[in-house]
Amino acid sequence: MPEATVARLPVYLRALISLSERGTATCSSEELATAAGVNSAKLRKDLSYLGSYGTRGVGYDVEYLRYQIAREIGVTQDWPVVIVGIGNLGHALANYSGFSSRGFRIVALLDADPDRLGEVVSGLGIRAFDDLEGLVEDHGVAIGVIATPAPAAQDVCDRLVAAGVTSILNFAPAVLSVPDGVDVRKVDLSIELQILAYHEQRKSLADQTLAAELDGVVGA
Amino acid sequence: MPEATVARLPVYLRALISLSERGTATCSSEELATAAGVNSAKLRKDLSYLGSYGTRGVGYDVEYLRYQIAREIGVTQDWPVVIVGIGNLGHALANYSGFSSRGFRIVALLDADPDRLGEVVSGLGIRAFDDLEGLVEDHGVAIGVIATPAPAAQDVCDRLVAAGVTSILNFAPAVLSVPDGVDVRKVDLSIELQILAYHEQRKSLADQTLAAELDGVVGA
Repeated sequence: MPEATVARLPVYLRALISLSERGTATCSSEELATAAGVNSAKLRKDLSYLGSYGTRGVGYDVEYLRYQIAREIGVTQDWPVVIVGIGNLGHALANYSGFSSRGFRIVALLDADPDRLGEVVSGLGIRAFDDLEGLVEDHGVAIGVIATPAPAAQDVCDRLVAAGVTSILNFAPAVLSVPDGVDVRKVDLSIELQILAYHEQRKSLADQTLAAELDGVVGA
Repeated sequence: MPEATVARLPVYLRALISLSERGTATCSSEELATAAGVNSAKLRKDLSYLGSYGTRGVGYDVEYLRYQIAREIGVTQDWPVVIVGIGNLGHALANYSGFSSRGFRIVALLDADPDRLGEVVSGLGIRAFDDLEGLVEDHGVAIGVIATPAPAAQDVCDRLVAAGVTSILNFAPAVLSVPDGVDVRKVDLSIELQILAYHEQRKSLADQTLAAELDGVVGA
């Protein structure tokens, strides 16, 4: 499956969950494409990789397609996750409801600061970073989230990898080196703002053009 | 420009900034495509909308392409932004270095909780939500970020829109209704985790297959 299709599956899943919550039982590829913000030809191509073609004249069964995509992504299974670095962002992530609803179960919150130990966030006590290896082994943790300041991120990453973690979600503003076989994804919180800026710039250009045209009318 | 291309421009920009920071002056479409995680045919198609075709045998000039894309997105200009809801996530966003480096200038942090007023975060004092209208007018704010709990998000959104904000980045786990002409984008922090889960699932299937094959060898 192409990587770009993989990256769109969670977006389709989110759109299907919204449709499902609104009580929609079936949807056309156009409806789903609009909800997911892609064109419908691309959506149909993507879903064809899952062997899902919908029913002519009826469309897609929302619940079944939701299950198919969740299974393909792997979020029908339980993913134990550790979060390292429980500052403001770590707190926000620990409280974020969108992880558990997608199969990600936070099993531990770790921090290097002794002053934070024992503080309870979202039902979990913050533990020492040195507990990492035991936790990864006990819970079979494959995914680690790094929410530390940038200077600590590579050391934390190395310890996660040495402990057996093979997927890392990095919120720290740092580029991480990992050995082959380990996946890293970096969250850039400014990407969505940039997409808004693109449209905002066009709105203000359109307003200027309109104002200039009105000036022309008034002047004429 | 297709919406999918618009969504990839910030990803190309991020890759070009990394190349630039490593001192790379020119890059091939393959190098840039790999750095951005797309295929090179799609990259070339996307850049053709900007009238950017690179030079045969040389590739793209990193600094010039970076400027072209930044200009197209609109991040060469200054975007004043307000953040509403200064809990853990709001604090993390206020401290996030990736906004200011892309032209987004946080001009105000607003919260409805009187106990938070006056607290200084990243050089800005938290102000009352009721100061919103004056701030939007004084700074010409077009973009608002909502980092409140879900139940407050629609009311905050309505006030932002009434004050003249026309683009909203929503971190709250709530679906927002806005009038025509207002853009809303929702950040789903679990999307990247789901992409990791997809690959993680395949890694563990590959391990199981290998283990079964080794069992077969040992058994034979």
